[in-house]
Amino acid sequence: MSKQRSKSSRYKRYWGLQGWKVCLPLTAIIILLSAGVAVAQNQASETPSDYQSLKIALDTIWVVFTACLVFFMNAGFGMLEAGLCRHKNAANILTKNLIVFALSTVAYWAIGFALMFGDGNFLLGINGFFLAGPDNSPMTGSDYEGVFRSLNWTGIPLNAKFFFQLVFAGTAATIVSGAVAERIKFSAFCLFSLFLVGIIYPITGHWIWGGGWLQQLGFQDFAGSTVVHSVGGWSALMGAYFLEPRKGKYIGGETYSLPGHNLSLATLGCLILWLGWFGFNPGSTMKLEPEAISHIIVTTNTAACAGGITAALATWLDPRNSHSKPDPTMIINGVLSGLVAITASCRFVSIGSAIFIGLIAGILVVFSVEFWDRIKIDDPVGAISVHLVGGVWGTLALGLFSEGSGSSEGPVKGLFLFGGMESLKQLSIQLLGIFVVGVSVLIMSSLAWLLVKFILSSSLRVSEEAEDDGLDLHEHSMSAYGGFLFKQDVKQEVLTERKRNN
Amino acid sequence: MSKQRSKSSRYKRYWGLQGWKVCLPLTAIIILLSAGVAVAQNQASETPSDYQSLKIALDTIWVVFTACLVFFMNAGFGMLEAGLCRHKNAANILTKNLIVFALSTVAYWAIGFALMFGDGNFLLGINGFFLAGPDNSPMTGSDYEGVFRSLNWTGIPLNAKFFFQLVFAGTAATIVSGAVAERIKFSAFCLFSLFLVGIIYPITGHWIWGGGWLQQLGFQDFAGSTVVHSVGGWSALMGAYFLEPRKGKYIGGETYSLPGHNLSLATLGCLILWLGWFGFNPGSTMKLEPEAISHIIVTTNTAACAGGITAALATWLDPRNSHSKPDPTMIINGVLSGLVAITASCRFVSIGSAIFIGLIAGILVVFSVEFWDRIKIDDPVGAISVHLVGGVWGTLALGLFSEGSGSSEGPVKGLFLFGGMESLKQLSIQLLGIFVVGVSVLIMSSLAWLLVKFILSSSLRVSEEAEDDGLDLHEHSMSAYGGFLFKQDVKQEVLTERKRNN
Amino acid sequence: MSKQRSKSSRYKRYWGLQGWKVCLPLTAIIILLSAGVAVAQNQASETPSDYQSLKIALDTIWVVFTACLVFFMNAGFGMLEAGLCRHKNAANILTKNLIVFALSTVAYWAIGFALMFGDGNFLLGINGFFLAGPDNSPMTGSDYEGVFRSLNWTGIPLNAKFFFQLVFAGTAATIVSGAVAERIKFSAFCLFSLFLVGIIYPITGHWIWGGGWLQQLGFQDFAGSTVVHSVGGWSALMGAYFLEPRKGKYIGGETYSLPGHNLSLATLGCLILWLGWFGFNPGSTMKLEPEAISHIIVTTNTAACAGGITAALATWLDPRNSHSKPDPTMIINGVLSGLVAITASCRFVSIGSAIFIGLIAGILVVFSVEFWDRIKIDDPVGAISVHLVGGVWGTLALGLFSEGSGSSEGPVKGLFLFGGMESLKQLSIQLLGIFVVGVSVLIMSSLAWLLVKFILSSSLRVSEEAEDDGLDLHEHSMSAYGGFLFKQDVKQEVLTERKRNN
Repeated sequence: MSKQRSKSSRYKRYWGLQGWKVCLPLTAIIILLSAGVAVAQNQASETPSDYQSLKIALDTIWVVFTACLVFFMNAGFGMLEAGLCRHKNAANILTKNLIVFALSTVAYWAIGFALMFGDGNFLLGINGFFLAGPDNSPMTGSDYEGVFRSLNWTGIPLNAKFFFQLVFAGTAATIVSGAVAERIKFSAFCLFSLFLVGIIYPITGHWIWGGGWLQQLGFQDFAGSTVVHSVGGWSALMGAYFLEPRKGKYIGGETYSLPGHNLSLATLGCLILWLGWFGFNPGSTMKLEPEAISHIIVTTNTAACAGGITAALATWLDPRNSHSKPDPTMIINGVLSGLVAITASCRFVSIGSAIFIGLIAGILVVFSVEFWDRIKIDDPVGAISVHLVGGVWGTLALGLFSEGSGSSEGPVKGLFLFGGMESLKQLSIQLLGIFVVGVSVLIMSSLAWLLVKFILSSSLRVSEEAEDDGLDLHEHSMSAYGGFLFKQDVKQEVLTERKRNN
Repeated sequence: MSKQRSKSSRYKRYWGLQGWKVCLPLTAIIILLSAGVAVAQNQASETPSDYQSLKIALDTIWVVFTACLVFFMNAGFGMLEAGLCRHKNAANILTKNLIVFALSTVAYWAIGFALMFGDGNFLLGINGFFLAGPDNSPMTGSDYEGVFRSLNWTGIPLNAKFFFQLVFAGTAATIVSGAVAERIKFSAFCLFSLFLVGIIYPITGHWIWGGGWLQQLGFQDFAGSTVVHSVGGWSALMGAYFLEPRKGKYIGGETYSLPGHNLSLATLGCLILWLGWFGFNPGSTMKLEPEAISHIIVTTNTAACAGGITAALATWLDPRNSHSKPDPTMIINGVLSGLVAITASCRFVSIGSAIFIGLIAGILVVFSVEFWDRIKIDDPVGAISVHLVGGVWGTLALGLFSEGSGSSEGPVKGLFLFGGMESLKQLSIQLLGIFVVGVSVLIMSSLAWLLVKFILSSSLRVSEEAEDDGLDLHEHSMSAYGGFLFKQDVKQEVLTERKRNN
Repeated sequence: MSKQRSKSSRYKRYWGLQGWKVCLPLTAIIILLSAGVAVAQNQASETPSDYQSLKIALDTIWVVFTACLVFFMNAGFGMLEAGLCRHKNAANILTKNLIVFALSTVAYWAIGFALMFGDGNFLLGINGFFLAGPDNSPMTGSDYEGVFRSLNWTGIPLNAKFFFQLVFAGTAATIVSGAVAERIKFSAFCLFSLFLVGIIYPITGHWIWGGGWLQQLGFQDFAGSTVVHSVGGWSALMGAYFLEPRKGKYIGGETYSLPGHNLSLATLGCLILWLGWFGFNPGSTMKLEPEAISHIIVTTNTAACAGGITAALATWLDPRNSHSKPDPTMIINGVLSGLVAITASCRFVSIGSAIFIGLIAGILVVFSVEFWDRIKIDDPVGAISVHLVGGVWGTLALGLFSEGSGSSEGPVKGLFLFGGMESLKQLSIQLLGIFVVGVSVLIMSSLAWLLVKFILSSSLRVSEEAEDDGLDLHEHSMSAYGGFLFKQDVKQEVLTERKRNN
């Protein structure tokens, strides 16, 4: 810990000297700091049996395969968020979503993974920075000797564990990207991502997956409805709050739609994310358990379908609007919301329950989008509705629908499956976890946003002119779609008069 | 069966009361119906040996991996079909291709999988609705006890079998989407998809893969040239027939090209589909057989290449047109046609034969597109040419080129490999299967299209105004490309006079 | 060899008769020639043990999975290159990138794989054309009996070996596509690709991976920084040199930017390539070694991140330009350059070294792009900077940073790890390999480009008019984006006067 503290104070001095536009050099420092750390990984001392060596190989390919699917979610988020924003900001969003995984990798390797899974106390890990320290993975259980004991239940090499957890951590940062889009400075986003992935995400993650106090209490979140999605969502919420709405979004009492520029990209993004979730959820077994992964892939898919269908219906059959139509972007968000919601409980619920969880998620997302607009939290892509609201619902739903796990590690039977007092206790712990993680991330991310502002000694937000012209021009001196002609490019009088859709 | 019949009559009453725009609630009913079904899956009673448990794990990861590739074909079809249609209908097509897998999931889980693979008779399965009923997978062969005996040859959990078959079923529905694009009502397509995936596809599928009469007769279709692609193709043909051509496609005796809006998307879609086929065909082993999957991936790829190359040549060296050029959309369809054609026989033919099969498929698709235009069947993306014509050719080709399988289950040596009388018998069965499946799907899909029309009590087709303005505006109140300027948006006189390409 | 020679002379006569526009029929000939070759693959004669059969299955799924990722790089290159070029040439580039893998497949199957991995001498393989000849894979080591002894270290079926190597070979050709974009004739590119994948790539590949003289000397290139990327890069360099710059690129002493048309595609392409590299590098083990693949995936990812970050910084903090911004296309190229650079050494370096290798690659690519512009080598997408410069750096870096391999096959400790004299020897061999491969590919690809020109009896380059109007119109009679309006489509006076970004 002391090493950690001295490092962050050194950062502050550096930032104080250099002012803004310096968020990326942070990584350079991290690299330099790491130079002194000897990377020493003990190999398993005994030769494993044939069965063991095949088992390790199987578990490793499973984790690598699913990690690749989760990594691909970077493309999914990139396409989704770019597609749902205006063309004049597309290059900016795409670049944010590309660089953020690079920054996440450095931050999580240097600090995050250690804070989250390194041996430590009930609040955070204090070993294993830069992946250093003893570790005899793929040894498991009591055979494991090393500083990442919270991951000693999976028999794969340390690097595979790290890579799988890294792609998860990257997800949290891309969630924020969408909610703060079309107005945040590129430098501010980069800097915040380092804090989120290096510090905030790992701390709450340690509580739930790293052996911390919520895990000890029995809080259950199988693949990260809370650990990943709510945490990303709460951070996104504070970002959207600090940044204030985009120009033209709320005028007087009215909410104006600022429609995205490319539904092809957004739909592609949604399908890539859907695919990615077949890594995210089944992969969270972190070993190849045939029954479990087959079950999880079906519950995951089913909840996505239910979410998409109910979001379609909710927008189609809107009683307040007789001309309502099935809304493509809401169907996309319904699918994603169903996926987020099933993430906590995918291993422990039946297909029927998965339908119900997705169904509620699909309705929630529609009303949630309206809710945030009502309180003037401007979230261009609906990230807060999908990941925060969906994540909270999913974490609760585990307490309602769990079939039980038949093990002391997993959840008890849920309330709706007549789990009785035990289930009420589980539900209370779920609620407690949701609440405490929410408050903690609100506080930590607020501090981080303010710190970013301080470091840049300027606003988090681009100038009004930049917002008008588009961030692509001001932040990157380019256009995402060179050669194309846009509505704003021609004089009004040359446009034909036929009915126009936006 | 009686349960089945009473359900469908209940549906009809419901639809009669509510009129149109209610196709999606069907799914809600299915969910409610499922509530009473106890999901009881017996686990394997004996502990498997180390070898067995590793084998099960290997087979499961293989099926899950390939199922993920096939799932990703949803993105492939979405991008391909959207790209080949006009921009004003892009949002509609994308949304259709997104929601259709959600609807397919519900229909196939509730009804389809049971009709197709559930124990029953030579015509259809009558057990296993909602995946219910005993099943001790991953036990195989005579150790298997359960209601899905037609899948007892693969040693993986039931949920993995279901998911793999589900992504196949979803494919059939997305094939239809392309052929009926740019004029079908969103509600009509949704409703038809439920019928196709819930009833039509499973019935003919049962005949060939579920233990039905064609399978007993010796009909061979390894990965679904007929089961998936032709069935989708016949349904698409009837859809295109009932819907009639798009406005402006055939005027007088002339056929006009209505070019797509985005070749980038279409090419991406083609490459995603090509990738997906490495799941589709090798995955159809449903177990990890190294020799077989290695062979299949090579024959599959080779046929795709041959199809693409000959389609390029056929459009490039067209003797009727001295200025002919290699046509990008036709190359795409040539690749896909090669893939469809090799699907039936990929396991049983040599690489040389795969080239020949793909080569013919690539030529067929070019002439087939012309043929459908001549009889005024308007298929915006060429789906009928690719999936129906390619599927029929592929099913026949198995009888011509098969190397034999060395097992009583597989095909005999093909006619061109001097299979003699045995091969003529095989070929006759292939022809019989093609014919009977064709006629059956023509009848069933016609009934389904008419039923959809009846349920909606209106035309399957959008209004003329909607077709002119684009389905995006009328069916979804949006534009897929907000902010972009299109040719129709500006007055004619401001356009420059230089040579224009559409 | 004699068979080989007679074949090529037959080709020449054919070409002489037919003139231009005939590059594709080459494939037809190859197919016909192959008809006489009996495909005889001996199966393993002994029944393998349970352990062995599971090991073979595991290694096969690993190679198939990673080969699928590498195949998907075709989509990555297609999207990247199309996105970085102008809209009027998009269809052409997309079609090139689609057809090139089809052509590569035929060329590599017929000739390339045999030249590269077939038994032969220190210069090239002379056995195994059309995959024919004895081969008892998956037998390994001294149990292996067949004509592909250079691949006898991996215990998978021959078809799996072939498919994995095929997708690598395809990569080399797509590299060239980018550098020659926007001005090369479609026919010229197709023809050159056949030479590259069928002859050039396999010959230098044989030297390094197929048992040839560089491999015997101890040259190290784990996954192909030289074998794949530099070879593609040198060929691209000669292509760009022979084709001369695009119109408007260099006028007087000035370099003009001709910005791409779609950063969404380019970013998607970059992320797909990044994903593909998780197949490219870890898959090059060609067997499932848990420790190795876990390590490789982390070093690969880390170098990509470092490359992206330093490219961002280098463009952002450019001391010569106080208004410089982080350049999205350069970040993309930085990521790719990092990936190319780590390819040679990914297995043998620490994470810290991977950061350093990527970091240098990210800076190199920025300056390299400027360098080629200064000497008027016009490379529209930066392919030469990424693949050639990155590949050379990566091959050298192995000699600097290697941790040693602990085996006589792998590299010794690198110079920066105090490898001493041994490391200097390794470094010399690396330099020798870089130099000889460079010179050889420069010569062979120059001959190939000239031969293509001779065969087509015309320029490699499209007419000036075609370049002005776009290759899409002249080479494919179409537009990639039908219906969209472009800047050139409207008269200047209707454009608004607000600040325009290209």
